Amino acid sequence: MSPNSRSLGDIPGLTPEQEATWFAYMRVVLRLDFEVAHDLAARGGLSHADFHVLNALADSPGEHLPVGDLAVRIGWERSRLSHQVLRMERRGLVSRRTAATDARVTEVGLSSAGRDALRLATPGHAALVRRLFFDGLDPDLLDPLRTALDQIHEQLVAEGTLPRPPGHQTQWAG
Amino acid sequence: MSPNSRSLGDIPGLTPEQEATWFAYMRVVLRLDFEVAHDLAARGGLSHADFHVLNALADSPGEHLPVGDLAVRIGWERSRLSHQVLRMERRGLVSRRTAATDARVTEVGLSSAGRDALRLATPGHAALVRRLFFDGLDPDLLDPLRTALDQIHEQLVAEGTLPRPPGHQTQWAG
Repeated sequence: MSPNSRSLGDIPGLTPEQEATWFAYMRVVLRLDFEVAHDLAARGGLSHADFHVLNALADSPGEHLPVGDLAVRIGWERSRLSHQVLRMERRGLVSRRTAATDARVTEVGLSSAGRDALRLATPGHAALVRRLFFDGLDPDLLDPLRTALDQIHEQLVAEGTLPRPPGHQTQWAG
Repeated sequence: MSPNSRSLGDIPGLTPEQEATWFAYMRVVLRLDFEVAHDLAARGGLSHADFHVLNALADSPGEHLPVGDLAVRIGWERSRLSHQVLRMERRGLVSRRTAATDARVTEVGLSSAGRDALRLATPGHAALVRRLFFDGLDPDLLDPLRTALDQIHEQLVAEGTLPRPPGHQTQWAG
C-alpha cells in the first residue's frame, strides 16, 4: 500500500464512519449504474441516458419539458443534454418544438416510439431494481434508507449549484 | 399527467415504499454525480472518470492494477475503460506496462503527475462530500444508511453480472 492510499481518509473533513459510508455509497452507485445500463442495453437497446430522458418526459405534464427544465431534472449540463436529445431525435425517440409561450424556448417531447420503448423497457427494469436493490435489504432498513436519502437530497438542493428541480416538494418522477 | 406517468409504479414488481425509495436514491445519484463532476472540473480539471481511476490506482498495491481488475473495481465496461486509460495516458496521469508475470496482461499505474493531481483534488472533494452528503444527514441515520448500502452491495455482488471485486470483503478503497 502506498502512502497515498485511502486518500479521503487522510483528510480531517470526514470522520471514519462518514468515510466508510461514502465508500459504501460509491461502490453501490458504480456497480448499480453498470448493471442497470447493461440490462437496459441487453433488453431494449436503450442507454441509461435514454432511459433517464424518456422517464422524465413521461412523467411531465403533456409529456413535454423545456430543455432547461429537463437538464435540471436529470442533473445534466445543458450541452450534454442537447447532444443527447439530438441523438434521440434522430432515432425517433423524442421530438423538439418551439414553446407556444416563448419562441426562444425549445421543448422536448416524448414520441410514440419513445413511449413504446419506455413501456417495453420498464417491466424488466423494475424487476432488476427489485432483485438487485431491494431483495437483499433488511425490510426494517427501508424507511431509514429513504429518510436518509431524502435528507441528502434536501441538502443537495439547498447547497448545490444546480437550480431547484421543477416541482420540488413532489416526488422526483411525479 | 399522462397515463404513462409514474411508469415504475404501474409495475407490480415494486411496492409503493420501494418505489419511493428508488426515486429517492435516483435523485440523489443524479444530482450528486453532477455536483461532484462540476466541482472536480472547476478546481483541478479532472473529470469524475479520471478521479475514479486515480483513486482506484492510488489504493492498490504498488499503485498498479491489471486493466481488467481496474474495470471490475470501478464497474465499467472494459472497452470504456481502455479509451479512458488512453486519454489519461496522453495527459500523463497514468502509465501502462506489460505485467511481469503475464505478457498478455496490461497493467495501469499511477504516474507522479496523476498522484499530484489526485493529491490536489482530494481535500476539496472531501469537503464537498461532507457538505453535500453528510451535513444535512441526521447522525442517527448514518449507521442504518451504511448498513443498508452494504446489504445492497452484497446483493449486487451476488446477483449482478460483474465479477466479484478484487479484494472483496475489504473496503472498496482498501
